[in-house]
Amino acid sequence: MTYRAPLADIAAALKSAALPAAIDEGLFGDLTMADVDAVLAEAGRFAAEVIAPLNRVGDHYGTPFKDGTVTTPPGWKEAYNGWRSGGWNGLAAPVEWGGQALPQVVNAACIEMWHGASIAFSDGPMLTIGAIDALQAHGSDALKRRYLPKLVSGEWTGTMQLTEPQAGSDVGALRTRAERAADGTFRLKGQKIFITYGEHDLTDNIIHFVLARLPDAPPGTRGISLFLVPKFLVNADGSLGARNDIRAHSVEHKLGIHGSPTCTMMLGDQDGAVGYLVGAENGGMAAMFTMMNQARLAVGLQGVGVAECATQQALAYARERRQGRAAGMPATQSAPIIAHPDVRRMLLSMRALTAAARAVCYATAIAIDRSERATEAAARQTAQERASLLTPTAKAFSTDVGIEVTSLGVQVHGGMGYIEETGAAQLYRDARIAAIYEGTNGIQAIDLVTRKLPLGGGATVAAHIKDLRTTVDALEASNNPAFGLAPARLAEAIDSLARATGWLLGRLDKDAEAALAGATPYLRLFGFATGGCLLARQALAAARDGDEAAPRAALARFFAENFAVQAGGLERTIIESAPSVLGADAALA
Amino acid sequence: MTYRAPLADIAAALKSAALPAAIDEGLFGDLTMADVDAVLAEAGRFAAEVIAPLNRVGDHYGTPFKDGTVTTPPGWKEAYNGWRSGGWNGLAAPVEWGGQALPQVVNAACIEMWHGASIAFSDGPMLTIGAIDALQAHGSDALKRRYLPKLVSGEWTGTMQLTEPQAGSDVGALRTRAERAADGTFRLKGQKIFITYGEHDLTDNIIHFVLARLPDAPPGTRGISLFLVPKFLVNADGSLGARNDIRAHSVEHKLGIHGSPTCTMMLGDQDGAVGYLVGAENGGMAAMFTMMNQARLAVGLQGVGVAECATQQALAYARERRQGRAAGMPATQSAPIIAHPDVRRMLLSMRALTAAARAVCYATAIAIDRSERATEAAARQTAQERASLLTPTAKAFSTDVGIEVTSLGVQVHGGMGYIEETGAAQLYRDARIAAIYEGTNGIQAIDLVTRKLPLGGGATVAAHIKDLRTTVDALEASNNPAFGLAPARLAEAIDSLARATGWLLGRLDKDAEAALAGATPYLRLFGFATGGCLLARQALAAARDGDEAAPRAALARFFAENFAVQAGGLERTIIESAPSVLGADAALA
Repeated sequence: MTYRAPLADIAAALKSAALPAAIDEGLFGDLTMADVDAVLAEAGRFAAEVIAPLNRVGDHYGTPFKDGTVTTPPGWKEAYNGWRSGGWNGLAAPVEWGGQALPQVVNAACIEMWHGASIAFSDGPMLTIGAIDALQAHGSDALKRRYLPKLVSGEWTGTMQLTEPQAGSDVGALRTRAERAADGTFRLKGQKIFITYGEHDLTDNIIHFVLARLPDAPPGTRGISLFLVPKFLVNADGSLGARNDIRAHSVEHKLGIHGSPTCTMMLGDQDGAVGYLVGAENGGMAAMFTMMNQARLAVGLQGVGVAECATQQALAYARERRQGRAAGMPATQSAPIIAHPDVRRMLLSMRALTAAARAVCYATAIAIDRSERATEAAARQTAQERASLLTPTAKAFSTDVGIEVTSLGVQVHGGMGYIEETGAAQLYRDARIAAIYEGTNGIQAIDLVTRKLPLGGGATVAAHIKDLRTTVDALEASNNPAFGLAPARLAEAIDSLARATGWLLGRLDKDAEAALAGATPYLRLFGFATGGCLLARQALAAARDGDEAAPRAALARFFAENFAVQAGGLERTIIESAPSVLGADAALA
Repeated sequence: MTYRAPLADIAAALKSAALPAAIDEGLFGDLTMADVDAVLAEAGRFAAEVIAPLNRVGDHYGTPFKDGTVTTPPGWKEAYNGWRSGGWNGLAAPVEWGGQALPQVVNAACIEMWHGASIAFSDGPMLTIGAIDALQAHGSDALKRRYLPKLVSGEWTGTMQLTEPQAGSDVGALRTRAERAADGTFRLKGQKIFITYGEHDLTDNIIHFVLARLPDAPPGTRGISLFLVPKFLVNADGSLGARNDIRAHSVEHKLGIHGSPTCTMMLGDQDGAVGYLVGAENGGMAAMFTMMNQARLAVGLQGVGVAECATQQALAYARERRQGRAAGMPATQSAPIIAHPDVRRMLLSMRALTAAARAVCYATAIAIDRSERATEAAARQTAQERASLLTPTAKAFSTDVGIEVTSLGVQVHGGMGYIEETGAAQLYRDARIAAIYEGTNGIQAIDLVTRKLPLGGGATVAAHIKDLRTTVDALEASNNPAFGLAPARLAEAIDSLARATGWLLGRLDKDAEAALAGATPYLRLFGFATGGCLLARQALAAARDGDEAAPRAALARFFAENFAVQAGGLERTIIESAPSVLGADAALA
């Protein structure tokens, strides 16, 4: 699979996410944009040259499972070693533990590229990053000293073990038990399913982060604790000790990401898996959300990455494949299909949706940076709430985009798109998982409506909407005909978003079911309005700087006139259609 | 894969397609609705009990290719023999050739069920039906006598061979040559790709219908002729003669429909494949469209069938799977996920989209019936134009629905949906082809806008829109609160459709590129307005007859408030966004 790092698009998105301004503020020490550009160029090179060629290999070979061991596809181990020894795993991790403390938004751009090259390959490292965050935020000093350096270096990988057969979206229903041992450690028994990279041969140890329930824990999510459970116990000197009582039982046969082993894990088949408490007893949900928030953004970036790869492939095909005549062409000639208006619509949809999803993800990442680094506590708090507000849309909107864009990618190829050899079908299969894991997109929409809109009594979302309006005001003021109807369409989209937001906030206490019924269309409206304005911001910056002004304006315009224009219909669905959802028992009988 | 024939939904759709009225008019001789019900019940039984269990088998085994032969999956040959000896192949074929001359709309309902049970299994017979139509309409009496009885009985199957590597959507670019032989037959040489059931072991002969070019043919589509090319030559007494010089060269490895062999065919590797001209020299496109029109409706019914199967599976899972609590439930309990508003939205979307697509397809089929059987020539002509108008939407809208609904089916299953064992992923893979073959959905949209809207100088589409308005007027007059906002939303959708139609008709001569740029959103608008009104018609009939009134009203309402409501945004996209498509060179560079 050919993949080229989209460095110009990434740079435009970083600029509109105000990374240069944050650097100028000194948020990242003496980091310069030149440093950032160098990092991104090198990451892009590694993604395109080393990882991307492995993507088809992984799809073909999968991850054979035998006698409890998983064999990764040919070439993956070498590529992983090259990747981690290049320092990519700890890019945004603290210097204290061996990381490089680069901005989260720069790491986000790199994560997009790893996934653009291969979701299956990059799935494992993504979870290691979540594990690092959880351990750093909640772990004891002793645990940090023993595990963080090797997790940050990537010598060991991490897993996130939440799901059980009866506990998927409903994490509180999990049953894995953790008994207190005399030495202060714990013994875990239970079964976990859908564990990404739960077993593999890339590293000589795997550090599992497992949610389990203490014997005296209250029911539901308030009775869940987080445990660190190494595959091999780690001695005081850092050397590996005994094999722990946690094993892969099987590997799933999935629709896509065949190179990413999805394991069923058995804990405590013998005496119990030795585990170490991370954070407080019964405080597992907080620790889990630390892991999940980063992972949700990273999954959103999977959507961006796979959409980018599909777009590149479709564009290349559409420039090469000749069928039919363009307008005014003599009957004896044939045109590249990119000349046909309907194909152009598909390709522009792919580019615009991908760029919008990228912009939303990077806006989330820079908010995380500010939440960690802003000088004032109030600014950190505001940024933290902004990141919380944007995370569900970064995850769900971007992964929906991943599905839509890879589907268009198949379609642009016509019959060739349905043949596995072409590669478009693999992207379509791979992209589908991202709307499911790390909280289904429905869960994201519910999170947005019920937990994120109320942040700050509604002030967080109000501030976001105000920011969007500022961009549209600037767009209107620019009087640039290249923007077409974008100023009007975006202004209407923001109005729809504001009204729908107010309506939902008014329902949460007294008619929560009505609000829940509109959650998914609301998240889409949020994505269209936000993505559309962020693309407009990129276009304004490009026009101001005279840098790629025409393509940025064309994309912003296309998105506004073809996607943001759907805002009015979505607003009506949110505000009016709850009775059609809640009162339709007869149609679901 | 469990599949249950959706007989009640089919009956409602047949009723709103006015089949009972057509029967009362005497269009189908002494056929009664009781006959129709008996046929559908028996077809449903065969689909559910015999075909459906083979669908996973076909996905798993595929169609191994060795030494020019294709082996169909275990059990397929027996099932095919049972199917054809049950008379299903010739259900709507003329009595003269051994068929049963049942209404096309009844056959459409059966075709939906065959595909609901397994697209891969039913793909082959679907093409035989197209071959029968082409031969009957264009073939010489001698060819008909020799080939039609065995094609109608299903003892032989038919193929449709258009595509070549350089000639996909651009059929006129095909290069396969047909040389005149001294005996009045032809010798064909060339290569065809993507030939569905081009080779298989279900029958002892395969009758290929091949588009090729005579030596003196003019360029482009005006120089294409249709040839009948049997796998085995047929002697005067009907017995099989020599093996003809047409052979499968390979079978594709596809995203889905693994049980349907997609072949590359080589013609004339030795002396040339013996072919018989069907219709006039250089008149192949007309004959091809006879095959294609039926096949396009049948592909639309693939979308309906696979969507129905996915909906049934998701509903069953959502009733069984328990996660989380419903509103007001104590913390110790958990609810089936069908209780959650967001899951209800997914399930209702699946049901409503499926029902709308079914209604559009059946409306197309009854128009074909009237075009063949109405007493007055003018009525036949009107019906024929109505069928032509509706066919692209029947094909493209329904297959888009197939993709969307099977994707929702994966999503409702959560992580389980991504595991191949569950079966939801197979439906998602299988459904994807239908938007591509028999003319991509983009080609359908272009056909709708450039060839179908101008029919009768715009009178055909105007009459259709008027019919839709009549339904909405009745909906408004009913004052039934169960319809919610459906009357208003559907009236607006029709207004949008009317305005968009007028705008496009006004552009075709002077600015065709602008019309082409809006073709795909226009087809979607056409589908939403038409499907919404047809569901409303079903609901009105149900309310009048006191038969399933509540579920039909709920579905019609849901569709109007959640899908038809998008009409305004689509109208704007059609009318306003052409410059954003055509002027975006910079964003496609």
